[in-house]
Amino acid sequence: MELIKQIRENEKKDKDDKRMRLNVGGHSFETWNSTLERIPGTRLALLATLKEADESWDSERREYFFDRHPGAFMSILHYYRTEELHADQNICGNIIKGELEFWGLTELDIEPCCWGQYSKFKDHKETLAALDDNFTSQIDTECAVWDEKPSSLNKFKKQMWVFLEEPSSSRGAKGYAVISMFFVVLSIATFCLETYESFRVPINSTVKPINNTGLHLVQAATGDYCVKDKLLDMVYSFTDTKPHIVMQVLDYICAAYFTTEYVIRFFFAPRKFYFIRQPLNVIDIFCLIPHLIAIILVTVNPNDSTSQLFKSMLALRTVRILRVFKLMKHYSAFNILVYTIKVSIKELMLMIIFLLTGVLIFASAIFYVESDNFNNIPLGIWWALVTMTTVGYGDKVPRSQGGYIIGCFCVICGVLTVAFTVPIVVNNFALYYAHAQSRIKLPPHKRKELKR
Amino acid sequence: MELIKQIRENEKKDKDDKRMRLNVGGHSFETWNSTLERIPGTRLALLATLKEADESWDSERREYFFDRHPGAFMSILHYYRTEELHADQNICGNIIKGELEFWGLTELDIEPCCWGQYSKFKDHKETLAALDDNFTSQIDTECAVWDEKPSSLNKFKKQMWVFLEEPSSSRGAKGYAVISMFFVVLSIATFCLETYESFRVPINSTVKPINNTGLHLVQAATGDYCVKDKLLDMVYSFTDTKPHIVMQVLDYICAAYFTTEYVIRFFFAPRKFYFIRQPLNVIDIFCLIPHLIAIILVTVNPNDSTSQLFKSMLALRTVRILRVFKLMKHYSAFNILVYTIKVSIKELMLMIIFLLTGVLIFASAIFYVESDNFNNIPLGIWWALVTMTTVGYGDKVPRSQGGYIIGCFCVICGVLTVAFTVPIVVNNFALYYAHAQSRIKLPPHKRKELKR
Amino acid sequence: MELIKQIRENEKKDKDDKRMRLNVGGHSFETWNSTLERIPGTRLALLATLKEADESWDSERREYFFDRHPGAFMSILHYYRTEELHADQNICGNIIKGELEFWGLTELDIEPCCWGQYSKFKDHKETLAALDDNFTSQIDTECAVWDEKPSSLNKFKKQMWVFLEEPSSSRGAKGYAVISMFFVVLSIATFCLETYESFRVPINSTVKPINNTGLHLVQAATGDYCVKDKLLDMVYSFTDTKPHIVMQVLDYICAAYFTTEYVIRFFFAPRKFYFIRQPLNVIDIFCLIPHLIAIILVTVNPNDSTSQLFKSMLALRTVRILRVFKLMKHYSAFNILVYTIKVSIKELMLMIIFLLTGVLIFASAIFYVESDNFNNIPLGIWWALVTMTTVGYGDKVPRSQGGYIIGCFCVICGVLTVAFTVPIVVNNFALYYAHAQSRIKLPPHKRKELKR
Amino acid sequence: MELIKQIRENEKKDKDDKRMRLNVGGHSFETWNSTLERIPGTRLALLATLKEADESWDSERREYFFDRHPGAFMSILHYYRTEELHADQNICGNIIKGELEFWGLTELDIEPCCWGQYSKFKDHKETLAALDDNFTSQIDTECAVWDEKPSSLNKFKKQMWVFLEEPSSSRGAKGYAVISMFFVVLSIATFCLETYESFRVPINSTVKPINNTGLHLVQAATGDYCVKDKLLDMVYSFTDTKPHIVMQVLDYICAAYFTTEYVIRFFFAPRKFYFIRQPLNVIDIFCLIPHLIAIILVTVNPNDSTSQLFKSMLALRTVRILRVFKLMKHYSAFNILVYTIKVSIKELMLMIIFLLTGVLIFASAIFYVESDNFNNIPLGIWWALVTMTTVGYGDKVPRSQGGYIIGCFCVICGVLTVAFTVPIVVNNFALYYAHAQSRIKLPPHKRKELKR
Ligand SMILES: [K+]
Ligand SMILES: [K+]
Repeated sequence: MELIKQIRENEKKDKDDKRMRLNVGGHSFETWNSTLERIPGTRLALLATLKEADESWDSERREYFFDRHPGAFMSILHYYRTEELHADQNICGNIIKGELEFWGLTELDIEPCCWGQYSKFKDHKETLAALDDNFTSQIDTECAVWDEKPSSLNKFKKQMWVFLEEPSSSRGAKGYAVISMFFVVLSIATFCLETYESFRVPINSTVKPINNTGLHLVQAATGDYCVKDKLLDMVYSFTDTKPHIVMQVLDYICAAYFTTEYVIRFFFAPRKFYFIRQPLNVIDIFCLIPHLIAIILVTVNPNDSTSQLFKSMLALRTVRILRVFKLMKHYSAFNILVYTIKVSIKELMLMIIFLLTGVLIFASAIFYVESDNFNNIPLGIWWALVTMTTVGYGDKVPRSQGGYIIGCFCVICGVLTVAFTVPIVVNNFALYYAHAQSRIKLPPHKRKELKR
Repeated sequence: MELIKQIRENEKKDKDDKRMRLNVGGHSFETWNSTLERIPGTRLALLATLKEADESWDSERREYFFDRHPGAFMSILHYYRTEELHADQNICGNIIKGELEFWGLTELDIEPCCWGQYSKFKDHKETLAALDDNFTSQIDTECAVWDEKPSSLNKFKKQMWVFLEEPSSSRGAKGYAVISMFFVVLSIATFCLETYESFRVPINSTVKPINNTGLHLVQAATGDYCVKDKLLDMVYSFTDTKPHIVMQVLDYICAAYFTTEYVIRFFFAPRKFYFIRQPLNVIDIFCLIPHLIAIILVTVNPNDSTSQLFKSMLALRTVRILRVFKLMKHYSAFNILVYTIKVSIKELMLMIIFLLTGVLIFASAIFYVESDNFNNIPLGIWWALVTMTTVGYGDKVPRSQGGYIIGCFCVICGVLTVAFTVPIVVNNFALYYAHAQSRIKLPPHKRKELKR
Repeated sequence: MELIKQIRENEKKDKDDKRMRLNVGGHSFETWNSTLERIPGTRLALLATLKEADESWDSERREYFFDRHPGAFMSILHYYRTEELHADQNICGNIIKGELEFWGLTELDIEPCCWGQYSKFKDHKETLAALDDNFTSQIDTECAVWDEKPSSLNKFKKQMWVFLEEPSSSRGAKGYAVISMFFVVLSIATFCLETYESFRVPINSTVKPINNTGLHLVQAATGDYCVKDKLLDMVYSFTDTKPHIVMQVLDYICAAYFTTEYVIRFFFAPRKFYFIRQPLNVIDIFCLIPHLIAIILVTVNPNDSTSQLFKSMLALRTVRILRVFKLMKHYSAFNILVYTIKVSIKELMLMIIFLLTGVLIFASAIFYVESDNFNNIPLGIWWALVTMTTVGYGDKVPRSQGGYIIGCFCVICGVLTVAFTVPIVVNNFALYYAHAQSRIKLPPHKRKELKR
Repeated sequence: MELIKQIRENEKKDKDDKRMRLNVGGHSFETWNSTLERIPGTRLALLATLKEADESWDSERREYFFDRHPGAFMSILHYYRTEELHADQNICGNIIKGELEFWGLTELDIEPCCWGQYSKFKDHKETLAALDDNFTSQIDTECAVWDEKPSSLNKFKKQMWVFLEEPSSSRGAKGYAVISMFFVVLSIATFCLETYESFRVPINSTVKPINNTGLHLVQAATGDYCVKDKLLDMVYSFTDTKPHIVMQVLDYICAAYFTTEYVIRFFFAPRKFYFIRQPLNVIDIFCLIPHLIAIILVTVNPNDSTSQLFKSMLALRTVRILRVFKLMKHYSAFNILVYTIKVSIKELMLMIIFLLTGVLIFASAIFYVESDNFNNIPLGIWWALVTMTTVGYGDKVPRSQGGYIIGCFCVICGVLTVAFTVPIVVNNFALYYAHAQSRIKLPPHKRKELKR
């Protein structure tokens, strides 16, 4: 039999070989001396070639002893046997990294099939540790200036700052946070609803709704039974109305509250310049300024509600919606999202670039084929994006044979582009979220221990 | 060579060190005494520092014996070597938890890279055990009152209750469940179809359909070839018709059946108040009351079918569709869904909040840019939600340059928001479903053993 | 220190205990005798309680020897220590199953956290083995009748059957398969294109296209600039045209080919009744019969092309599109899809039921709120389904405040319902596909070995 | 007790059996001689049957020694015990492959439940190694011709080629790459914007926009309040305008730059024919030729801007958008995408075929049911594709009962088809991307070591 022959041959060449016994952390490994010589320049090859008793030699038990991880050593020893380094899947890549260094090997020798698992662990260690840091309260470092020269004023300032910033610090702080959130919600609700028909009153009621009789006449005359809807759209005009007085009052109350809050928080902020640069505080200022200017304008010249400046101030108030981010301040999931986006900015760009490439190509193609329908390429870009993301408004639709064919390709490419890129962007969020959640589940005193 | 030097140095400092042999569950581990001293306050550090024979010392074999898990100990011992605690990936986190406690370590020392796998096991143990409990029949605990004082009446009551509640208890019970389901389906089908044109008859046939000749005349006169559809919409009017008499009869039959069923089930229910509060029974009552009131009204005053109360009773009948949940009662997947939603309520809120934030911002932006097209922010919210979820009705579409640009961002943010948050909400359902399915596959007597 | 005390106490109670040494497949495990007694009725508990030398006792080495899997035993022994059975993640569940049986334990003792991984392996073993069988050629079993009584006719019949059924058997068989596929594609292409304007000729050309001058007059008269599109729709009428003569000839050629093929294949089929019931052959018959009847009708009465029977035969030809499944016959991915759907039928029902529940509830809600827009519940069902699956045609859209709110809920519930249920349905397909692909990559002679 | 009996029986038949001790890489395994005989023809069976001392016999320690992987051997030995080969999950399939070969076993004996993990590793090794090669710079192999006969000219040519091709080679090369990209972006931007209304001027301004007063008159006369939009579409006509002179100049500059660049790169290309065939260079030529011909035409005959050739040249310029791929040249993610698509071409076909099958069936069905709405099957195909991918433009929507039902099935099948097939196509991209990213994170000198 072939197998027997093969066996005999194998053993012949091993004849003059010495068997090496390695005790790694209490587990014993054995191999031929010649095996260890196969990868020169490494710790084990040195052991094998020196052929002399070295410090790790235990003459009593006739073995070499190394105080290392026995599990990882199994893979490492097998590297000498097969000249392929496969890392064990159940041992953390960071352990393997350390062992590889000890044995004088390089991580680059890890085969591609096992590299992924290995490097995943290394990456996670860094990013997740950074994530843990991200959730550490920075109040102590912020207030270091005050802690250095402790006076009763500084002590009070720190107490107030903790009160303002850390809702979990005391009951009062929690109450304050709730009130603050209530005003943010109130401000946003006011802003959204004051644009809504039912909350608006006409400035001067010259436009009268056409009664039904009139409507029927118009319909009879024009033969257009859709006229009612069209007329209704004309009757109600946004620019001829103003928000109800209650909405305006609520608006002023919110403005007053946010101004006061900003001033107080600025006063107690330990590092003023750092405070001003914080994104949420920048938003605060952005929301307040147009409001305050508008109030000043009205006070100065009450009748002039049509000046250009006043109007642009009104328009700028839309920025106020950004206050929604203030709600997110103490919401860990949002912070994780921001962290994920920061870390995955490259992947996000990847998605945008892939989408853009597809969109440009299909926009040009549809413009080439249906230039009467898609008058210009920017319109084609709008259509292609809406199609590729499977939104499909239907405001612009191909109408010719060629257009249909391009549309089909666009749809399929869109589905694939989204499917290819989105998981890569999103990938880490689930991991980070799960990590943060399992940290949050720990009791508070344990979490503190964590924050080394 | 540098490596050799490094090796020599390493071994020098170990010279005056003692080698410790630890027998953990039969597997032998060896390390230097100095290694064990590195993490003070733990069981192994005590062993190393005491330098005296302790109870676990086996003088014969010159080793310490511990009756613990040898696999987990490999990671634990490596913690002493590298001062980084990496948990083994293939050992359940709950084993590791127990071992860490025994060796005097804390789970907080686990590195972030291995924490996820570790805490996943801990979580699953709890949630899946709760899921198993969720599927345990509670009839025995419910009927405990009757079991305490066993009389023939109580025995009969319990038999009846099991018959009504547990379709798997007997053939008759199964038959009853099927009949009950049939009436639910009949009730829903009746309700849906009685609104459909073909199943309705006119109350008084004053409105006559316009014949085709007339239609052509109208079209010729107005030049509006869409007129036919518009007219048809006018001809058939929901309020001028009533459901066919057969539908009404079916309706009454269902009402009678559900009333009887509720009364009987209430009579045999072991805990009356608990019974009334059950969601499915609340739905039953909600569905029945408007129906019964309507019947009483008709009996009292047969001609008055236009009174306000009668009309509102008719409207309230829509609630009847909730009977669809009665079909779900014995459907395990639905119970798993409910359980998942209960457990993932936080993640669901996350999705809603993220969507809402995006929706509010884009609604404001589109309102700011196209205030003539999007008259108010609530309309913008509708558009933004429909766009972000890629539904894209197309009833409201941006029409200007600025609107297109905001639309593009809205679409991309929508795709990402959904992609970021949905997997987190959905995540556990697949796990719970797979778990429940593999439990269901077990033969019934085995499943009972499970329910400890 | 507390830890020291605890250690002392632990060891005291172990004092009068005996240490057991178990050699499992060459790996040694040690534990206290008392530990093994903790789970009574199992093999190890018996060993511990009998306190006598049993057959597995090796007096020389003073240990019990078992020829079992040492890896799985680590978990099993730990069950005695902690009374919680956690299965090792890297050992196949089927190995664990066997070991549990040997040691007298039940799989039901596995903790929920490790149950999933364990039962996954068990499931996969069954379903994937079934999948492997699914791809085994059944020609040999089919032709068993002929093999029993070998005559030259039967031999020829078998050769022909292999030729017709197994494209990989010979070059000629491959050629035949290609020709057969060509005719299927031709048949489908003919069918699709003969409905298209460019491939149709008018039956009698009474309807003349209106020239542009006429169009402008109509536009001027009616003031409707959309009239052109409307008129064009009228000018081209499907019923007034017939397919081009070339299409008809191709149609007849395909019909002739498929008839011949069916007859030949029927003749050589080893099991006639089994052949007739095969889904693909049923489709063949369904496609051919209307065609043949139509031809007979034309032959009998050439002028009567308007009879009801003839028309319904024409309509029935639509069934012909099902021939597309004939293309799939030799396409392994399609067979995997069919297998997946068969296995996941329960999950598919789950998706349908969840969608249906949602659809019914939202249909009722929208009907309740906007009964003037959504005239009946079936229409609401259409809208709800189109919305929940994020298709969003926009043919029916809510128009009131209440409708918008219901629409928002419908959209979000839809996204979630799809996200919850689709992964569960789809789950196995990727696994089966990957499995089948890795099997297909094996060289053919190896694949045969596999099919035990 | 039954268990005891069973135990006794088991041990009886083992009585006359010999215990074998196998030392595999230092780990000891023990089993009965009879166990090893169970799978004949393998290395271990030979060992057991020969019953003689073989070369691997270590008489001193009374065991057989094999210098192999002890972890994998645990599974292999268990194969002899249970006759089912389950591979360990945490050992790379490539290690298992080698061990199986050594022990005389075949990978085909691996059970289906463990096959997936095993073959995954094998696949990854190949595809990921190919991916690594894909990113290796090929400049050295390209320039081999010049390196063979080193002259100062050849040296300069190589330097220039490296400068042109490898932006990371020097600062200047980086600068050149940036300039090159800038021109690509400029060219694309010019192309897109020159079609946009604001960047176009009328050729001869005969068409005057209708003023608002006129509009109101038209509206009043026709009763068509949509007339404004329709008129606006007529007023602005693409063919009556030409791009602004600035756009044209930018266009010429880009053309000049790309021509120069192509000529220079062609001059320095080491292998001319290979250079010409490169996809990106083919695109370059395709983009330039229509441009150059147009310029020549204008030079020859400046007034004739309406000739057919000139017009078709203008149209062909759309190809220019393909220059977007030139941006991708140095973008690794794009190369990974191309590689993924190359590797997954089979899976991509799978998706297309499944979609096509669904589309054809639903197109026929909707054509059969609503032949007045869907005039021909190609239109039905468009509708079915748009529905199945959940784009849902709403330009064609079913309008009858039957159509609604088919629409519902189409939507659900679409969602499922996409969900079934897309993950399979996309599957590998995330893996390849993660692999490439972890490679890119390595410091450059390390990456070079990798490229063996
Ligand atoms: K859509
Ligand atoms: K849509």
